[in-house]
Amino acid sequence: MKGIFPYLKELSQETKSKILLIVLDGVGGLPETSGGPTELVAAKTPNLDALAKKSALGLLTPVYPGIAPGSGPGHLALFGYNPFEYQVGRGILSAIGIGVPLNQGDVAVRGNFATLAPDDSVQDRRANRPSTKENNRVVNKLAAAIQRIEGVKIDIYTESEHRFVVVLRGRDLGEAVSDTDPQATGVPPLSAAPREAGDTGSVKTAEVLNAFSERARQVLSDEPVINGVLLRGVSAHPDFPQMQQVFKLNPAAIASYPMYRGVASLVGMKTLPVKGEEDALEGKMQTLKAHWSEHDFIYLHFKKTDSTGEDGNFAEKVHKIELFDALLPDILSLGPDVLAITGDHSTPSVHKAHSWHPVPLLLAGPLLRNDPATRFTEDEALKGSLGQLRGIEMMPLLLAYAGKLQKYGA
Amino acid sequence: MKGIFPYLKELSQETKSKILLIVLDGVGGLPETSGGPTELVAAKTPNLDALAKKSALGLLTPVYPGIAPGSGPGHLALFGYNPFEYQVGRGILSAIGIGVPLNQGDVAVRGNFATLAPDDSVQDRRANRPSTKENNRVVNKLAAAIQRIEGVKIDIYTESEHRFVVVLRGRDLGEAVSDTDPQATGVPPLSAAPREAGDTGSVKTAEVLNAFSERARQVLSDEPVINGVLLRGVSAHPDFPQMQQVFKLNPAAIASYPMYRGVASLVGMKTLPVKGEEDALEGKMQTLKAHWSEHDFIYLHFKKTDSTGEDGNFAEKVHKIELFDALLPDILSLGPDVLAITGDHSTPSVHKAHSWHPVPLLLAGPLLRNDPATRFTEDEALKGSLGQLRGIEMMPLLLAYAGKLQKYGA
Repeated sequence: MKGIFPYLKELSQETKSKILLIVLDGVGGLPETSGGPTELVAAKTPNLDALAKKSALGLLTPVYPGIAPGSGPGHLALFGYNPFEYQVGRGILSAIGIGVPLNQGDVAVRGNFATLAPDDSVQDRRANRPSTKENNRVVNKLAAAIQRIEGVKIDIYTESEHRFVVVLRGRDLGEAVSDTDPQATGVPPLSAAPREAGDTGSVKTAEVLNAFSERARQVLSDEPVINGVLLRGVSAHPDFPQMQQVFKLNPAAIASYPMYRGVASLVGMKTLPVKGEEDALEGKMQTLKAHWSEHDFIYLHFKKTDSTGEDGNFAEKVHKIELFDALLPDILSLGPDVLAITGDHSTPSVHKAHSWHPVPLLLAGPLLRNDPATRFTEDEALKGSLGQLRGIEMMPLLLAYAGKLQKYGA
Repeated sequence: MKGIFPYLKELSQETKSKILLIVLDGVGGLPETSGGPTELVAAKTPNLDALAKKSALGLLTPVYPGIAPGSGPGHLALFGYNPFEYQVGRGILSAIGIGVPLNQGDVAVRGNFATLAPDDSVQDRRANRPSTKENNRVVNKLAAAIQRIEGVKIDIYTESEHRFVVVLRGRDLGEAVSDTDPQATGVPPLSAAPREAGDTGSVKTAEVLNAFSERARQVLSDEPVINGVLLRGVSAHPDFPQMQQVFKLNPAAIASYPMYRGVASLVGMKTLPVKGEEDALEGKMQTLKAHWSEHDFIYLHFKKTDSTGEDGNFAEKVHKIELFDALLPDILSLGPDVLAITGDHSTPSVHKAHSWHPVPLLLAGPLLRNDPATRFTEDEALKGSLGQLRGIEMMPLLLAYAGKLQKYGA
């Protein structure tokens, strides 16, 4: 364990108090025109406004000033994990992003379907960007032909277009293995190689991947376009310290998209079932109520504030914020001891992408200072009594306000 | 030396300017009822108010967001020492808390008086919680019988009730030694053991502690209740870099309680004599005036803002703040070049304990920016021109305002 974790492990204690962490994905925004309102300012949020008046606010820099985090680092930070210290490999991120079940010891790899020339050199690294349906046809063909290599179980999954994921499930597999994707055309794919010759686990992984590439080439030899694979981002399921150990919590996640369920499970959260399609607001509320009594920490995720921002749809992002506001009375009626509402990063509609701007944090609970901030908005949060914080600093604060941290030192 | 210390050592320079650091222990507070005043807001402090209008304010997070520090870490941070890097062992903290004189090389251990059964198993880890007077009687009996073991001087001190402190004074004693307290009843005390077999200093310490436990059992064999000892928290006097080296200061401490005198002496401060009982306000003022010319850095400690907070006595904490306010003109008349007033942590009366909330920092001196904060209170400090800082960041600031830090780099 690194950074503050050994101290938090020593100081944290189990109590009956309940913490609810609500993440409005990408909720931070920007004005459309200079001086205009942000999405949060424009939204009509009577319930959030009333809550903000009784709460403490602050401004959270998700990872580091200037860094626009992806969903992985942004969420890890909110869960208290320093995303520079606790890294998730690209293969594993792709796998959890499409909802592949993963276990300790599994190794995941990102793949491109490619077109290879008769001399085996790479002709098109993306095989003319096939449809996802075509991708799926080829994945099924490969899966039927390749199930095990050298005793290691091989699972192949469609991501989208030319992208797929391979998961190796075996024993003592290493992850320190180089890519086979040469990142260029006119040259043959590379051989996967262990970064260190003495690393027997990675030697094994490299052997399996090279055998997989060769078998795939054989199985696809009759295909006119997709006739080869390029592999990269070899990574093992990370062995992160679990929230149960570090924070002595019994944590659960309520999220509908695979990426968020996956990141939550990496840190030890139980991922609760959610009924419904896409953001499944109703299903999430049902799950929250049904499982409220079972956990002392619940992470509740809302996605659409991010996707509407990525679409550049200011009005629709405003609308999604208002939809969340309408759910708030029901959420509050559960009576969390400590409630935090924040985002994992900003996704300003005018930027159409994740950005580095800080996000508002609202903390409702006991022992709050008087707070001059009156709304859950970027500019009000800047005035808030919680001040300006980094993402990873929020979790110790939530534990403290919930009475779950003992005094440090005498 | 760790963190920023090598840089501060390189940049610091001796000058004639004087820094006065006033620590109002646990001064940060909370409103009794939502929207109400904190202790600092409620206090009538005309002198502090006038000073605040001419000063720069800021908000100090003592150690880390969410962390409620003990007196040791809270003070070390104010002295510029990262309390996660510069740790004081539990035995040493107990020893300095009761005012035991300590020197480099000493090893201190916390002890419980216990009741052991005839078969040597622990019957009561706290010997039915004896009175401190009874503890003192047994300490004297042990001290008369055990003075030296294997050439190491043994000093035994009463802490309170069942708790005592043993200090080993010898040469080359190690501290990497396990506890003898099994933290359970029905099992015999453990043997103290070095954590690594090759660590000869710790092997020696373990031998001495095991011999001490055995001798104590013999000496106390005729006692009906207190007939054994359990030892834990073996720790050596820490070898911290001294303020003289790191900051090129000639520092002194004015504090009446042993814990604060002890922590100050660990970082190299001369602990000046103070006449009077308890917080000894008059005695502290006399000492401050008498020794003003001798030091370029003086740490002046007031305790009662913390103890009244721990008692949950809001009105009395307000009163103690007002008592300090009345002393302020006399303190200012000495003409410190840089004056800082802050706390080592918050002790809100409504919380009756140390808390994690930030504390106000007031800095009076030259080269200040205009500052919108008009009082030394939590909410005004949030607006202050010094911004939001960590405890360990204050000391470099004080040195800078006092002209004691040279430019870094060309």
